[in-house]
Amino acid sequence: MLATPTYDYIKSPQGIYEESFRIIREEAKHDLASLPDDLGPVAVRLMHAVGMTDLVPDLRFSNAAVAAGLSALKEQRPILVDAQMVAGGITRRFLDVEQGGNGNEVLVTLNDPSVWDLAARMGTTRSAAALELWRPHLDGAIVSIGNAPTALFRLLEMIKEGAAKPALILGFPVGFVGAAESKEALAEEAQELGLDFITLTGRRGGTPMASSAVNALALMALGREI
Amino acid sequence: MLATPTYDYIKSPQGIYEESFRIIREEAKHDLASLPDDLGPVAVRLMHAVGMTDLVPDLRFSNAAVAAGLSALKEQRPILVDAQMVAGGITRRFLDVEQGGNGNEVLVTLNDPSVWDLAARMGTTRSAAALELWRPHLDGAIVSIGNAPTALFRLLEMIKEGAAKPALILGFPVGFVGAAESKEALAEEAQELGLDFITLTGRRGGTPMASSAVNALALMALGREI
Repeated sequence: MLATPTYDYIKSPQGIYEESFRIIREEAKHDLASLPDDLGPVAVRLMHAVGMTDLVPDLRFSNAAVAAGLSALKEQRPILVDAQMVAGGITRRFLDVEQGGNGNEVLVTLNDPSVWDLAARMGTTRSAAALELWRPHLDGAIVSIGNAPTALFRLLEMIKEGAAKPALILGFPVGFVGAAESKEALAEEAQELGLDFITLTGRRGGTPMASSAVNALALMALGREI
Repeated sequence: MLATPTYDYIKSPQGIYEESFRIIREEAKHDLASLPDDLGPVAVRLMHAVGMTDLVPDLRFSNAAVAAGLSALKEQRPILVDAQMVAGGITRRFLDVEQGGNGNEVLVTLNDPSVWDLAARMGTTRSAAALELWRPHLDGAIVSIGNAPTALFRLLEMIKEGAAKPALILGFPVGFVGAAESKEALAEEAQELGLDFITLTGRRGGTPMASSAVNALALMALGREI
């Protein structure tokens, strides 16, 4: 047992949050000032999720995106996500009716036993095939994609083919193959397709961003910012 | 229904993996050449998890880290993680005995009902308090931290206070308060404390990195690289 003293670090969750958001707002203040007011809390939460304050230049969104997300939350629409990690990062007490939330269901279909066969028959990834099970839930839902570019491409295809439209698409697939391309397609075609969206162009993204975007909206729906 | 054709994108999971890893190895080849051979597959998987190829300059590790991780996997030691999202990102079939894995248990104690009280009594975060429930499992385990700096600080404190040592610490807490500091403490004090570790200095980190580091080791233990 060494005599070294323990570390001096902030142990209060509230203190950690407040100091984190203070640093983000200070470092990114010019970028944040360029955003519509209601996008600010979402952008701050995205930066908080990944420890990077340089996201705003890559952020693309429709003007009604946040309003559409808040309406969908208040209408108890489901939240459809492409990976268990996204579901795991959504703070359920922000949605909990007893705590002032709207009790929205979080649905992840990737691990449904039927999806392996579906993917083989469709000749695509499990992440894309899993969207077939979203069809009855899509209308007016919030979709948050944090992993698979193929899921975002497939969602756009389904909507073009006539599937019901979600209220809001949070598009944060990550990686080297298709991530940048699928998010670019979302940003370019959303207006023509009548879609509200928030996305981060380029390779960056990931399940923590997809979760934190939902958490930001849920907190705004509760009238809280942190 | 619009007449726009569907998108041209790679739909084969194997094709996506191979092309992703090809891009990473090409872009990061000079950095990867500077690493010990057995660290390469871990570094590549970390980059794959976050869509960024500039991680190697921030990577710190002990020379025996990968060997220690592989031994712990083969000895069926548990994998202790600080968040449900880390557990959700660990590909269980890589650990599955029937598929050649070693059947290691993945343990996340954060959501144990006792942790709220424990955190209040200890005056710390739930993430740090949850480590009290790791004590019977720590000896020779793999620890992977992808969220909370306070969990990594607390782990180092517990080891200094005499707790059993894990075989390997994968240190990827993320964010603005304590993340850089806790990972710096790990890198600086590991040798004195007799710890093997892999970490990414600075603010970057996150649950996808913590999961993918475990997945990389599990694949190496299976004799596979992808």
